[in-house]
This record gives sequence, structure tokens and C-alpha cells, in this order.
Amino acid sequence: MDDSRRSTLDKLQGRLLSGEVRALARSISLIEAGEPAGQELLARLRPRVGNARVLGITGAPGSGKSTLTDHLVAAARGRDERVAVVAVDPSSPFSGGAILGDRIRMTRWHSDPGVFIRSMATRGHLGGLAAATLQVVALLDALDFDVILLETVGVGQSEVEIAEAADTTVLVLTPGQGDAVQAFKAGIMEIADLFVINKADQPGAARLRREIRAMQEIALPADAPWRPPILETTASEGEGVESVVSELDRHSEHLEASGRGEELRRRRARFEIAAILHEELRRALAAREDDFVDEVLSGGITPAQAVARLLER
Amino acid sequence: MDDSRRSTLDKLQGRLLSGEVRALARSISLIEAGEPAGQELLARLRPRVGNARVLGITGAPGSGKSTLTDHLVAAARGRDERVAVVAVDPSSPFSGGAILGDRIRMTRWHSDPGVFIRSMATRGHLGGLAAATLQVVALLDALDFDVILLETVGVGQSEVEIAEAADTTVLVLTPGQGDAVQAFKAGIMEIADLFVINKADQPGAARLRREIRAMQEIALPADAPWRPPILETTASEGEGVESVVSELDRHSEHLEASGRGEELRRRRARFEIAAILHEELRRALAAREDDFVDEVLSGGITPAQAVARLLER
Repeated sequence: MDDSRRSTLDKLQGRLLSGEVRALARSISLIEAGEPAGQELLARLRPRVGNARVLGITGAPGSGKSTLTDHLVAAARGRDERVAVVAVDPSSPFSGGAILGDRIRMTRWHSDPGVFIRSMATRGHLGGLAAATLQVVALLDALDFDVILLETVGVGQSEVEIAEAADTTVLVLTPGQGDAVQAFKAGIMEIADLFVINKADQPGAARLRREIRAMQEIALPADAPWRPPILETTASEGEGVESVVSELDRHSEHLEASGRGEELRRRRARFEIAAILHEELRRALAAREDDFVDEVLSGGITPAQAVARLLER
Repeated sequence: MDDSRRSTLDKLQGRLLSGEVRALARSISLIEAGEPAGQELLARLRPRVGNARVLGITGAPGSGKSTLTDHLVAAARGRDERVAVVAVDPSSPFSGGAILGDRIRMTRWHSDPGVFIRSMATRGHLGGLAAATLQVVALLDALDFDVILLETVGVGQSEVEIAEAADTTVLVLTPGQGDAVQAFKAGIMEIADLFVINKADQPGAARLRREIRAMQEIALPADAPWRPPILETTASEGEGVESVVSELDRHSEHLEASGRGEELRRRRARFEIAAILHEELRRALAAREDDFVDEVLSGGITPAQAVARLLER
């Protein structure tokens, strides 16, 4: 790196550490774009990573997970904790797909320097969504955010990967939409540490609870050290949010007491490595896959030779 | 390659193409062990790959899939087709976990040169189970076997991958064991082209049929061009096997008529490339993952730097 680039990076780092929001937004863009400067920043800040609580909030569009997230932001601010929200959700208020009411609701944090909100575009990442998201979480962690709320729609492989990177994962379901079955199918049911039945005042809430219990019986070993509680909320009214907060705390305590906290930090690092590796190779392979398949089918090369060529670059 | 190794390989290739069973067994061992000679053989024979029907037979241990496989071997021999069985199943008769009766049953093919049977050990593959299995299927395909029966237990990611490599996948389920739910969970339900309820004379067969139908309704789009039929067999008596054979034929015709046959050959080549790539990297990463995670957690490197080091070798 030449001196002028080093000096630019030094300045950005200084502004980041003094808590400047625009520097943070800029740094995230560098990471998303796969810029070397973003990677260099992450390398410099890496020793500071490892103190944030990462909470995953997952649920279908319209399940009310954004409203719940908003309440969780308020709860954290009430304790004077710094909070970041990373939304990986095309329908989320943060990423432009939301109705006006949601936008207005979130603007109440706009002037609060203890809250940072960022959406991850689901397209156009040079680094792959899972890889980029995990890197942004690491950056926020390094910058002393106490709580990072990672909001995802919870469908698709990369979203499941992202949700698995959280210390605690909350699955938000709503009555009458076959959500439980869909979540089960997507493999997300098994990674939930906490179930929230939102819109619990609507018909079908009791049935949804039974469905969750039934699927839990299939998925959960009898001697599981943590049995995910099933809570009910009406997030639009703020009802039930307090018990979500206290169960989140109880799960955090469980993680530390059982030694799972350290294990989860290792797991997150492992996911981040795997996500970056996977993305590097997906890109390298995607560019040449059709040619490789043509050559293999015509008998010109074997699949193993295709792999050897790919790894040689 | 030096002359003596080339000459050894030439001889092995000649013996293979003349249909010598011991040469085939030896070649498969070379592939399983990840030997360069095995890879060179595959490269030489690759132009001959692409004519076999690959039929996956998947089911839990004890479901009777081996007995069904045996009937399918008989049916193919009745048409004078050459048949290979590749069993990826620790409980299969071919891999040593079976009861004496099964062993005796299979010995009836021992003297038939039109039948080749091979089990893939589930451990000790240098090349990874999915990668090795797909390479063995390619070898058998190149050697003019008309039908390759790929028998798997159908649990675990690599088994699902293997099953997905078949042109047609038969899922064998038995009444009263919650098989449908387990298969659904494992993601195997959606790749079945044909359901066989074996031991259909036992209580619970009607219920199992209803469960399969119910899960099909969730998983199958309304306009799916192929609706997997649900057949009933009592494989131990040979009952219902004829309709399995005719539905397998109907599916093969469907594949060719719809142009899916070509698509599946491409997909199998793609799987083979991906399986080999995945295995190469899994091995490379596994050897250093713990060190990488330690270094990342101590702040010494970022996950992206770990990946860069790995790819540099």
C-alpha cells in the first residue's frame, strides 16, 4: 500500500473509532464492494472483535419482525447500550421495500448516536451476501456496539447461514400462514432459540403453538440443554415484548454459563471463513462452469481435471 | 507419466474394456484411494460416459430397498441388460452389515458376468464419499453398463447429493416408522421421482400413503410436469415389483421426451465437479481450520486473510 492510501485509511480508522456515523457507512460500503481498503480496515480492527451480543431476528415478510426489532432497539437504549441493526431483508423498512408507516417509525432513531441501522442489499455484492453480512457484523462488533440485531427473512440457504451466525436466533411466526411448516422445511426451525408468535391476538395462534410444539418434538433431543420457549406478542402494541427481552437475556446467560458463548464465537469465525471461501469459489466456478460441463460431457476433460484447472486459476 | 506406468495403465484399460471383473474392482479401488492412476483411467474413458440409466434407490436401513434392488437386477437381466449396483449403505448386504439371508440372496448373481456389485465404504475415502461415488458411476457408465442402481440410505447431506445425481430416484418407505416425516426433514422427499411403500401388507400403509400425499402437496408445484406415483410392494414376496419397473420406464421416457435427460447429464457433471471441488477444499480447510479460527479470534488475521492463505496453499 502506498503512503497516500495508508494515510486515507488511517483517517477513516480514526473517524470510525471516534464513532462517526458517516465513516461507518463508508466503511461498510467498502466491505460490500469487496474493496481492498475494506479488507484492510477489517484486518486492523480484528483484535477488537468478540464482545457484542449478536441477536438474529428471523421471520417471513409481514410477520412483524421489524416492529419487534424496533422494540428491542428501544429496550437496549433503555439500558444505555449501543445498538446496531443489520437488515438482510428486501421487504424491510431499511432496504426500501417498506410502507411509509415503517419508515416513519424508524426515523425516531435517526438522531440517536447510540443506534446505527444498515440494510444489506441482496444483490450486487461482490463478496456474497453471507460473507459481506458477517464481515459487517464483525466491523460493528469491533466498534463497540453492545448489541447487533441481525434481521433476516429466513428463507434460502445463505439466510439460514446468516441466521446461524447469531448467538441467539429469534424466529417470528404469525398465525394462519403455514409459517411453521415452511420454517421447518427451510431448516430454520432447528436453529431457533426462541419462538415468537406475533399477532397473537389473531385466530390460529393456539394452533400455531401446537404446530411448533409438534415439530419441536421431532427436532429437539430429549436431553437438549436449552428448550426454546414459545412466546406471544402483539408487536404493534408492544405487548409481550418484555418477556422476549427477558428470555433473550436468559439465553445469553445460558450461553455463558454452559461455555457455549466461546463455542459460538468460534463457530461465527468458522462460518465467516467458510462463507468467504464458498463465495470465492462460487464466483470462480460460475464464470467457467458451463464451459467445464460442456468439456466434461464431450469427454474432453474429467470433472477432477476441471477442478484442478479451477484451483490453478 | 513414465513408460512402465503407462504400459500398466494400458493393460488395465484393455482388461476393463474386455469386461474383466477383477480389473473393474481394481480400478474402483484406485479411484477410491485417490490414486493418480485412477484419475488417468477416468480421463481416458470419459468420452464413453453418458449412456447408462442411473437409478437411485434410497431408503432407511431395514426398509427393504436391498431386496427391491435385487428384484430390479433380475428385471434388467430378464431384458438382457448389463447391471451394476453401487451400494452406499453401511447396513447393506454389500458392505458387510447385513444378515446372512441377504448375503445368500445376492450370491445368486455371483456367476453372472452381466451383474457387477460394489459397496462404497463410508469411511476412509481420500476423495470424499460423494466425489468417489460419482466417479465410480462415471466409470461404470463408460464401461457400457446399461443400468446403474445407486443404493443409498438417504440420510445426511452427502447422501442427498449422491441421490440427486441419479436420473430417477426411488424413495422406499415402510409403514409405521415415521419415515415420511424423516425423509421430509432430510430434504429427500423433494428429490423422489417414485415412492415405494414397501411392506405394504403391514398396518399403517394407508396412513403412510396419506402422509406422503400431504407432504407432496406442500412440496410439489401444481404445474409440476411429473407427479411422483406412490406404489406399494411386498418386496420379500416380489409383489408389486412389476409396477415399479414399468413406472421407472415411464419416468425414463418422460425424461427423454421432456428434454430433461440432457439436463440431468449436465447436472450430474456439475455435481461431480462440485463434489470434487468441495472435497478438495474441505480437506485443505480441515487441516488448518482450528489454527485459522484461533488466529482470527486472537485478532491475528481476518477470515478473508485465512481464505487467501488457504487458496495460496
